[in-house]
This record gives sequence, C-alpha cells and structure tokens, in this order.
Amino acid sequence: MGRHKVFLDKLSRSFQVRNLLLRQAMAECLGTLILVMFGCGSVAQLVLSGGSHGMFLTVNFAFGFAATLGILVCGQVSGGHLNPAVTFALCLLGRERWRKFPMYFLFQTIGAFFGSAIIFAMYYDALWDHPGSFNVTGPNATAGIFATYPANHLTIVNGFFDQLIGTAALIVCILAIVDPYNNPIPQGLEAFTVGFVVLVIGLSMGFNSGYAVNPARDLGPRLFTAMAGWGSEVFTVRNGWFLVPIFAPFLGTIIGVIIYQLMVGFHVEGEARDKKSRAQENVRLTNVTANDNSKEATKEVH
Amino acid sequence: MGRHKVFLDKLSRSFQVRNLLLRQAMAECLGTLILVMFGCGSVAQLVLSGGSHGMFLTVNFAFGFAATLGILVCGQVSGGHLNPAVTFALCLLGRERWRKFPMYFLFQTIGAFFGSAIIFAMYYDALWDHPGSFNVTGPNATAGIFATYPANHLTIVNGFFDQLIGTAALIVCILAIVDPYNNPIPQGLEAFTVGFVVLVIGLSMGFNSGYAVNPARDLGPRLFTAMAGWGSEVFTVRNGWFLVPIFAPFLGTIIGVIIYQLMVGFHVEGEARDKKSRAQENVRLTNVTANDNSKEATKEVH
Amino acid sequence: MGRHKVFLDKLSRSFQVRNLLLRQAMAECLGTLILVMFGCGSVAQLVLSGGSHGMFLTVNFAFGFAATLGILVCGQVSGGHLNPAVTFALCLLGRERWRKFPMYFLFQTIGAFFGSAIIFAMYYDALWDHPGSFNVTGPNATAGIFATYPANHLTIVNGFFDQLIGTAALIVCILAIVDPYNNPIPQGLEAFTVGFVVLVIGLSMGFNSGYAVNPARDLGPRLFTAMAGWGSEVFTVRNGWFLVPIFAPFLGTIIGVIIYQLMVGFHVEGEARDKKSRAQENVRLTNVTANDNSKEATKEVH
Amino acid sequence: MGRHKVFLDKLSRSFQVRNLLLRQAMAECLGTLILVMFGCGSVAQLVLSGGSHGMFLTVNFAFGFAATLGILVCGQVSGGHLNPAVTFALCLLGRERWRKFPMYFLFQTIGAFFGSAIIFAMYYDALWDHPGSFNVTGPNATAGIFATYPANHLTIVNGFFDQLIGTAALIVCILAIVDPYNNPIPQGLEAFTVGFVVLVIGLSMGFNSGYAVNPARDLGPRLFTAMAGWGSEVFTVRNGWFLVPIFAPFLGTIIGVIIYQLMVGFHVEGEARDKKSRAQENVRLTNVTANDNSKEATKEVH
Repeated sequence: MGRHKVFLDKLSRSFQVRNLLLRQAMAECLGTLILVMFGCGSVAQLVLSGGSHGMFLTVNFAFGFAATLGILVCGQVSGGHLNPAVTFALCLLGRERWRKFPMYFLFQTIGAFFGSAIIFAMYYDALWDHPGSFNVTGPNATAGIFATYPANHLTIVNGFFDQLIGTAALIVCILAIVDPYNNPIPQGLEAFTVGFVVLVIGLSMGFNSGYAVNPARDLGPRLFTAMAGWGSEVFTVRNGWFLVPIFAPFLGTIIGVIIYQLMVGFHVEGEARDKKSRAQENVRLTNVTANDNSKEATKEVH
Repeated sequence: MGRHKVFLDKLSRSFQVRNLLLRQAMAECLGTLILVMFGCGSVAQLVLSGGSHGMFLTVNFAFGFAATLGILVCGQVSGGHLNPAVTFALCLLGRERWRKFPMYFLFQTIGAFFGSAIIFAMYYDALWDHPGSFNVTGPNATAGIFATYPANHLTIVNGFFDQLIGTAALIVCILAIVDPYNNPIPQGLEAFTVGFVVLVIGLSMGFNSGYAVNPARDLGPRLFTAMAGWGSEVFTVRNGWFLVPIFAPFLGTIIGVIIYQLMVGFHVEGEARDKKSRAQENVRLTNVTANDNSKEATKEVH
Repeated sequence: MGRHKVFLDKLSRSFQVRNLLLRQAMAECLGTLILVMFGCGSVAQLVLSGGSHGMFLTVNFAFGFAATLGILVCGQVSGGHLNPAVTFALCLLGRERWRKFPMYFLFQTIGAFFGSAIIFAMYYDALWDHPGSFNVTGPNATAGIFATYPANHLTIVNGFFDQLIGTAALIVCILAIVDPYNNPIPQGLEAFTVGFVVLVIGLSMGFNSGYAVNPARDLGPRLFTAMAGWGSEVFTVRNGWFLVPIFAPFLGTIIGVIIYQLMVGFHVEGEARDKKSRAQENVRLTNVTANDNSKEATKEVH
Repeated sequence: MGRHKVFLDKLSRSFQVRNLLLRQAMAECLGTLILVMFGCGSVAQLVLSGGSHGMFLTVNFAFGFAATLGILVCGQVSGGHLNPAVTFALCLLGRERWRKFPMYFLFQTIGAFFGSAIIFAMYYDALWDHPGSFNVTGPNATAGIFATYPANHLTIVNGFFDQLIGTAALIVCILAIVDPYNNPIPQGLEAFTVGFVVLVIGLSMGFNSGYAVNPARDLGPRLFTAMAGWGSEVFTVRNGWFLVPIFAPFLGTIIGVIIYQLMVGFHVEGEARDKKSRAQENVRLTNVTANDNSKEATKEVH
C-alpha cells in the first residue's frame, strides 16, 4: 500500500493547478458537463426510444437532479453556478467579481459542448437507427435532443418573454436560497433545492421552447450539433432563434434580481444593517456607562 | 468594485421598507406569486400541450414543490403561509396576531393574481393556438388553468365537503410540522415537508375539484381570468361555485385545528407544561433544602 | 389577545389526557388515519377517474409520503409505527413493551377505519357516478380502493409468500433506519426514509396484491367497506383472502428481524458491547495505575 | 421483560461475528440483495403487468431508492458500495485495501443472486401466467427482468462504450460525494445522494442496455436465471454480451477516477496539503518568535 500511496501523492502534486480562477473554471466545466450530459441524455432517451423509455416528466427530473449533481461536484470549488445567468446575477449583486463572468461563461459552454458530445457518442447507434437521424426540423427532428427549439405556436416575441420569465423565476428562487441575510436551508442542501427549482421550471415552463434558461447549456450543445452533422441550420432555423436563449436570460436575470431585492432582499439586508448599528451603539453606550461606573468605583475606593 | 458596492448600498437604503407588517405582507405576496406561477404554469402546460408535456402527476409535483419554493423565498420574513387558511389556523391558536390575517389575505390574493398574470403572458401564443381559447366550460375549457372548477359528477354539498376535508388534512399536517412542542423536523426542512403535504393532497384529493384548499390561490387567479377575457362566467358557473373554495377552507381549518389539538396537540403541550411546573417545584424544594443546609452549615461554623 | 390565550389554556387543560399509553394510542390512531386517508384516497382517485387523474405510480407516491406524514404527526408521541407489524418487530427486539402491542393494533385499525370513511365521504358522488359503484369483483370493482385483493394470477400460497416477503423487506429496512447501534440518518429524517421504503415496496412488490404489508391498514378499511355497502363479500371473496394480509405480515416480521440481526444487527450491537467492556477495562486499569502513581507521589512527598 | 432481554443478549453473543472483513462482506451482501430485490422487482412488475403497474420511470425510481436503502442498511458497517466498480475506485485511490476487492465482489454477487431469487419466488405465479414465461429473447422475453440485455439497435462496441460512460459518470458523482477534501453534503445524506445519481443515470442512460453499471448486479441475477429455467442462453445471446457489463464498468471506473481527479480532486487535495504545510510553517515560525520573546522576557527579568 505504501508504494501505491506515494505514487498517488506524486500524481497529485504533478497535476495540481494552483491558479484559483483556472481551478474554479475547470470545476464549472465539469459541473456543466454533468448537467448537460444527464439532461440531454434524458431527452435523447425520450426521443430515440419513441416514448417507451421516457416522457417529458423524466426530462424534467433528469435536468433537475442533474443540476443537483453538477453543483455537488463543483460547488465547494467554484460555487456551482453551471449557468452564466447565475454568475451574472451574483456579479450584479457584488458577491462575485466581474472578471469571473467571461471565464465561467467560456468554461461552462465548453463543459456543455463535451456533455452533449458524450451523449452523441453514447446514443450513436440509436441515432442512426432513428428515422430522421440528423433532421433539425420536422416530426422526426433530433436536433432538439441537444439544443432548444421553439414550438410551432411560438412567436419570437413570446419566445423572448418565455426565456426572460423563466430565468427571472430561476434567479428569484436561487437568490432566496443563497441570500446570506435570509438563509433558510441547512448547509449542504442548497444543491438539492436548486435541483427542485430546475425541476419545477421544467414542469411549468417547458412547453414553449424547452426551458433552456441558461445560455451555456444551449450554446455549447448547439455548436456541437453544428459540427457533428446537423449543419448550420441549427443557427438559421426560425430566423435566428438561437440568439434568444443567449440574450433573454441575462435580461431576465436583471429583472429577477430587481424583483427579489425589492420584495425581500433589501429589507432583510437593511434589517441586518440596522441591528448591527444598534449593537455598535449599545457597545458605545455600555462603554460610557462602564467608564462612569468605574469612576464611581474609583471614587468609592478613595 | 468599490463604486459598485457603494451604489448597491445606496439602493438598499433607499428602497428599504421599515414597517414590519408591510415587509411581511410583501414577502407573502412574492411567495404566493411563486406558488401560483409554478402551479398554474404546470396546469397550463398540461392543458395547452394536450397531455404531451404534462399529466395530472406533474401538476401535483409542481404545486407541491412550488409551495416549497414559495415558503423558502418568504419564510424567514413572514413565516411562509402562502394561504389564508394557514394564517387563520395560527391566529386561532394564538401564535399570530389577528390583525395579520386581513393583511396577509390581501397580499396573498394579490400575489396569486400576478402569478396567474405571468403565466397568461408566458403562454399567450399557446392559448390563442388552443381550440377553446377562452372557454370557461366544455371539453376545451381553459379557465381551469387558473382557478378551480368542480368535475361534472360533483354536487355543491360534496364539493363543500371536499374542500373542507382537504383543508383540514392540510392543517393537521402543517400543525404537526410547526408545533413548538412536537417539532420532529430538522430546522430548515419545514418547507420541503409542507411541499410533500401539498403533493400528497394533490395525489389523493385532486379528482373532485382540483384541490384549491387555499382561498387566495383560487380567488386571485379567478379575478384575473374575469378581467383577462373569460368574463363574469368564471363567477356565475355552477351556481356560484367560486364561493366554495373561499369559505369551505376556513371551516376546514377550524376542524383541522380541533382534531390535531384533541388527538396530539393538547397532550404534548400539557406534558411540557407539567414538566415545567415540576421543574419549578423542584427548584423551590432545592432552595428550601439549600437554605436548611446553609443554616446547618452556619450552626456548625458557630 | 390575552383573553384568547387564557381561553386556549383552559381548553388545553380540560382536554389533556395524562395516561401515556392512551395518548400514544390516540396519536397512532391519527397517524394511521392520515396514512390510510391519503393512501386510499390516491387509489380512489386512480380508480374513479378511470386513469385520467392517477396511475399506479401516483398510488406508490401517495402511500410513501402518506407514511412520512403519518409518522411526522405522531412520531414524537408514539414512535410512529402506523403498522402492527412494526410494533411487533420492536416488541420482539425488546425495544417496546408487549402490552403496547394490542393497544396499538386496536387504535391503528380504528384510525385506518376512519381514514377510509373520510375518503368514502369525499368521493361519495364520484363513487355513485362510477359504473360498478359497490362491486367487490369484476373489472369495475371499487372495493379495492379501500382493502387489498389478490390479482387473478395469484394463488393463495404465492399470495401468502408475497405478503411475507414484502413485510420482511419493510422490517429489514426499518430496523436499519432505527437501529440504535447503526444509525445512519440525521435525526428527524427517519420519517422521510420510511416513506421511501414504502414507496420502493410499492414500486417493486405491488403487482400481486397491492402491498398491504400492514394488518391494520387492510383490516380497518375492509371492516368499513363491509358496513358501508359492499357487504360480507369483502371477507368471503377468494376463499377468505382477508386473512392473508392479517397473518402473513407477522410471520414476515419474524423473518425480517432474524435476517437483519444475523447479517448486521448482532455484529454492530456486539461491537458496541465489546467497545464498552474494553473501555471499562481501561478505566479499571487506569484507576489502578493512578492509585500506583498517587502512592508513588505520596511516597515522594514523605 | 427481563427474561426476554437475557434471551436476546444470549442470542446476540452466540451469533456475533468478530472478523471485521467477514462482517463487512455480509453487510455488503445484504445491501446488494436489497438493491437487486427492489430494482429487479420493479422490472418484474413492469414486464409482468404489461405496463399497467409500472413504466420505465418506476424502474428508475426503484433502482435509485433501492440503492439508497441498500446503502443505509450496510453503510455504517461496510461503507455501502453495493458495486464492485465503487470498491475498485476506492482501492485505486488508496482509500480501501485491495484485499477487500475480491471479498466484496464475491459477496455482492451472492447478494444479487439471492435478491433475484426472492423476486423469482414472489412473482412465480405471475411469471407462469405471462405469455413468454422463460424466453431470453423476443417480444415476450422475461430474462431482462433479472440481468441486462442490449436493445436491438446496439452494436457490441457501442454497448461497451455505453457501460463505460455510465460507470464513469457514476464514479465521478460518487467521488464528489465522498471526497474527504470536497465534502458538500451533511453527514448521513450520502445514501440519498447516491440514490439520486442512480436515478439520473437511469433517466438518461437506460435506453441502450438497461444501465447495469455494476458487475455484481448483472452477474448474480444472470447466474440465477441460468439455473432457474432460462438456461445457458443467458450467457450465449448476442455473442457473449454478458461479458460487457462485467468488464466495461472497471474500465469506466478508471476513466471516471482520472477525470474527477484531474478536474477537481487533485486541486482540492493539493489545497488542503498546502494549507496544512503553511500551518506547520506558521507554527514553526511562531515557536521561533515565542522563543525569542521568552528570551527577551528572560533578559528583562534578569
């Protein structure tokens, strides 16, 4: 055993990355890979089995619990955002530095890219066996396994609003979960709670366009499909729909942050601030009284 | 970063509401908005997708976990009732002041109103695409997305009893979860447990009339549908059914409170009281003995 | 408020039951009522809606989480057995007194009786609306909403074995969850874990005869149906099937207790005993050494 | 009661096994038995009921929560691996001794063998009632209740890759959950989290060949079916498919360990090591300073 441990220790020292931001970005990459691998895997299972091994509910469960697992894998290192919109919200509130944002966005997109690549490889035979193997549109389309596409009834304006509301709802719930002044959840259960948020969004906001609410989760797999055989149609379809799940979530984030702060956040924060300043006031007063008392005491002694 | 933080701090001070009751009511409003937004959203997804993106089980899950998330968002500030019947139960037991009741009821209804408005906007295209866009009754009715309506087999008497039992069951479970003398759940998990209660009620008591068991959750969306295009039929249908989910829950609350208190509550409370008075008795006796001992000791010294 | 509190306090004192066993039995009664009300309610919803508002999975979820809620309601007072087989197992292991067993069995059966009565009242209209309102057998039978009946393929021997295995599996898992020497779960989460056990048993052992695995849960509702209109056929059907879910679970309990104790229980218990006796040995040795040391010290002083 | 307790104590002493490795192997055996009993039971319920009492989602839930329960039953004693691939991963990382590996593998396979035997006995009548009682292939095949078989679209290469990816995903998540330097979960909830991992793998990676990702879970039941009436075809079908779920998972384990360590593990481990060495450095420096100070102090005194 001794030699085995020494070897492991050596390996650990050789591959250790000491740059904190790079380490965090790598963890985000792995976390988002897990989110997309399990999430898109469940869509693949639903589409390619023709409904025998899945339904929309299983996709909702898979994305929800995949978010939980992705956060558990990287949360201690990088905070477990898995979503540039979440990083953006925390930057807006001054809880993360802005320079993290592009780095996280990049590595989250890379993770999502490889997550969908793994699912492509895993279901390669099933994909070729499927009637419309590499269709982007139509009843046998398979591009929707990886990136999101709007339902036929959806106009681009309503689609933009759909992504905006979905992300705002996500951000309001996540802010409540991680608010340092309003922390209602036992430490270590945040990941599960965020998983439930993603699950509920899927249960109630998934019909219009598949609830991406995450620019990296949509862009990474879309890039992969463009390269893997579906071609440039994944970008051009529906007048450039692909721009909606990239830009609408950030606007939704801003709205979510404002709503949460106006309705709950500012007040609990302010209450904490008031309490603190009252406590300092009391300390000052106590000191004054203590001084007076000690003077009295000194007088009595004399 | 410095300037960003200063700006946030300034914002926080400007928008801080210092009135406790108003702050609590605003938090209840946001919590109920989340409950109704996710809950009614899942009904919309089920109805408008014609069953391809939902089923009754997904509605049960959505309402259950939406209750959990609503409580997490506002629980630390307002207690996370989300339901006038819950506020009523806690007032009955003397754990909340009666003046909170109308305020909470009002803001919960406002939150439910806006929650359904968001879902209306989100599924606007899908609603127009649906055969019976703005029908209140009939096989293609969509009014049931927002407020609850009785199934055809249900008489008004059985419907009243249905809401009464559902709310009584909800209240018995919630009282057990929050009973200060019988608290079985780790702090911070109450929200999840209440979510399971709502889920189970939906799984077993949802067939008659859609388990509103919450006057605000039903009245707010019904007002919204009356204004948004379904018209006054939402109030007149089935001989004024809308009154049942407003009044039956309060009667159910009273019954639930009585049952829980008679079967469990009074006894655990009484046990705690007995223990306390025994402890005080002991303290008194100990003091007496201590005095006696000190007298003895004093004698010995002399 | 003052007068309100005084009134509540008075009420509490009047209705307080001081007999511990009666109090515990009443709590068991309420807990089992909740289990059966939600559990049978979900079967009623599935059967009476003809599958539109439920499926076998929703019944599994409902029974699982109903067990969780039932335990939460009464667990602090009575231990939350909800099942005479669980009480029997704990008596076998010497963790509960045998005189509790008949009392708990009786009140659990009473609770199950009233739980099914509530569901009967709640779905009264729906029941009359259903084709085979009060049939015990046949494709439109409704007696299965309340008590369990074997599937057509099942012989009485296999049915006995089915209930025996189901209960043994339940007991092995519950013993692991509550074993004082092998307690792996954070305090307060036992109820949720038992709920998962019931859920899993339903998912994998429910096809033969509906996984009663609980004599009280089956006998109480069966008595109720006999009185409410289904008649004595509920006892005579399939050559007295009703005896199987009463007696097989107790035999299964014995087997479950033996398996758990042989494979895990005796060893962790023994390890704890060994550790304790080693610790006492050490204390004895330390005392001896300490005495020696003090002797040495005394010598040095002199 | 006294005599009852003495009897239990005597029993406990007679049957206590003091050999730690044997005790652990027995616990693994019971844990894996529970995993396979509930997991394969749910497949049996799905297949034999023709879909009326189950669907693929219920199988996913059953395997996930069965893993949770199996871990809860044996986790405190043996670590709750239930899977030779998990034991292999922990040996690779030097956290378990290599000699545990064959012992655990053997007893896990024995547990899986008996778990499937119990389900065979439980559903004996239903199996004979089923059209293709003992078919290994074809639309009425029942061999898939116990061991896994590839879907028709799957080539052996893709199948190997499928098992490899599935196990790698499992191992990455489990390593994150049990990493001593990156432990994000409250103690006692690991079992639930692993259950979610198994659930998610089933939701997204189950379509190709039924996500064994566990050599013991597949080999034990396959041996049982070969003996119970399905014959040697269970080994020969599809050119010896049975070798894939035995060997691919170990390769997947190696890949999973490498990915987790490179992306997260080495860095958190290294950070802990750096922190420790810095702390030791500080202690050394503090001692030096303290010595200097004491010298100064000594000088001042003199």
